[in-house]
Amino acid sequence: MNLLLLEPDQLSADGAIRLAGPQARHLLTVLRAVQGDEVRVGLLNGPLGRGRVVATADGAVDLRCTFDSGVPEPPRVDLLLALPRPKVLRRLWSQLAALGVGQIVLTNAARVERNYFDTHVLTPACYRPLLIEGLQQARDTRLPSVSIHRQFRVLIEDDLDRLVPDAVRVAAHPGDARTIADVLRDRSDGRVLLAVGPEGGWNDFELDLLRAHRFVTAGLGPRTLRTDTACVALISIVHGVIR
Amino acid sequence: MNLLLLEPDQLSADGAIRLAGPQARHLLTVLRAVQGDEVRVGLLNGPLGRGRVVATADGAVDLRCTFDSGVPEPPRVDLLLALPRPKVLRRLWSQLAALGVGQIVLTNAARVERNYFDTHVLTPACYRPLLIEGLQQARDTRLPSVSIHRQFRVLIEDDLDRLVPDAVRVAAHPGDARTIADVLRDRSDGRVLLAVGPEGGWNDFELDLLRAHRFVTAGLGPRTLRTDTACVALISIVHGVIR
Repeated sequence: MNLLLLEPDQLSADGAIRLAGPQARHLLTVLRAVQGDEVRVGLLNGPLGRGRVVATADGAVDLRCTFDSGVPEPPRVDLLLALPRPKVLRRLWSQLAALGVGQIVLTNAARVERNYFDTHVLTPACYRPLLIEGLQQARDTRLPSVSIHRQFRVLIEDDLDRLVPDAVRVAAHPGDARTIADVLRDRSDGRVLLAVGPEGGWNDFELDLLRAHRFVTAGLGPRTLRTDTACVALISIVHGVIR
Repeated sequence: MNLLLLEPDQLSADGAIRLAGPQARHLLTVLRAVQGDEVRVGLLNGPLGRGRVVATADGAVDLRCTFDSGVPEPPRVDLLLALPRPKVLRRLWSQLAALGVGQIVLTNAARVERNYFDTHVLTPACYRPLLIEGLQQARDTRLPSVSIHRQFRVLIEDDLDRLVPDAVRVAAHPGDARTIADVLRDRSDGRVLLAVGPEGGWNDFELDLLRAHRFVTAGLGPRTLRTDTACVALISIVHGVIR
C-alpha cells in the first residue's frame, strides 16, 4: 500500500481520524508505524496529503491529516469491456484502478456466458474494496465509475454517447494489422475509450455496430491473450501513447 | 486453450497420440471434441500443426497429428526480474509465456525478502505447467527458459553477457521521465532485455551496477504498479515498439 485512502465521512473537520480494522492493522504490522511517523494519505475522489500518527493503542491508530497536494488528474482512458469470467474479472478490478481508468463499462456480448452476470464479483461490495486497493497501490484517489449493461445494442446505440462523450474510440480486435499507436497518432490530446471483447472475440454484428459508432479497430499482434492480460497490455499501451 | 501443446515424447513416429488426463478432459468437456474434429496442436519447442480426433473412449482421446505450419519465431524480449512475492510470481508465469518472453532470469535484490526463494512456485513442477498454459493461450510452442540467481552482483557482472548476449538493456525505474519508446527508438531490430526491480525498487548500488552494465533506465509514468501488472505493461509496450 503506497497510499492510505480515506473516506471523506471518516474524517473530522480538523483532519483527525481514528483508524481501526484492516487499515490500522496494515499501518501497525506492515509499515510498523509509531507515534510521530508520517504516511501518505488521500481522500477518496479528493486531494492527496500527509497523515501524522498521533497515537496507537489497542490496534487502533489516530492520525492527524493535512491535504495540500491537490487532486490527481482523472485518467484519460475509459474501458468498455465484454463481461469476462468472474475469476478473471476479480483479478482485474485492482489492476484497472492501479493502471488508471476513468470509467469501467461492462457489457453483454454474444460470446459472454449468461451466468457471468450472476456473480457477486459484479457487486460494489466485492469490487469497491478491490478498486480502492488498486488506487492505494498507484497513489490515486479517483475511484473509477462502474456501470453494467445487459444489452450491447442499447448500450452502443443509445447510452454510450452520454456515458463517454468526446472520446477517440478504439476496439481491440485480435489480428487487426493496425496498432493502437497507429490509431492514436496525432490524436493524443483527448480521452480514449478502449473496447475489449469477450475471450472468443466480438461477432460480426457487434463489430459492425462498433464500427458504425465511430470505433476504429486495432490489433495487439499475433498472440491471443487472456482478457485480464489483454486489458493490462492495451491500457498500458494507450497510456504510453497519450501521456 | 487455443492450442494443444504436446511433448515430443508423447508422440509416435506416425503422428499418433493417445491423450488422457487434463488434456483429454479439456478436449471432451470444453471443446466437446468428437471423432473427425480437428484441433490446433503444437509440439513443445517445435512446429504448429493440426490434430484429427480418430477416436474417443473412456475419457481418452486418440489424435493423428500433422505438423506443417513451421516453428513460431522466438520472442525478442527477455526478462530480468527481481524475485517477487510467491503469490505474484504464481500469477505471472502463464502471462509471461502468453505475452512472449524468451528467457526469464530471476534474481535476488536488496529489497527481495530472503524467504521468497524457498517457495515451490520456483520449482519446475509448479511453473512448467503454468508456462505451458500461457503458450497454449497464445498459440506459441517455445517454452521460456528460466534461471534463478541468488547473487545479483555475480549475475550482472559475470553471467549476464553469456546468458543474454547482444540485447538492448532497459531497466524499469519508476519515476524516470524517459519512456521505453524513447530508449528503443531506432533500436527496434534486435533483442531487448527488460529489467524489473522489486516492489520497493532497485537500491542505489543496484541501479549503479545496472547502468555500469549497459542498462538504460526508463519509467512507466507516475503510477506505482504491482510487479505482475508492471511486467505485463512493460513487456506489452516493448513488444509494441519492436514489432
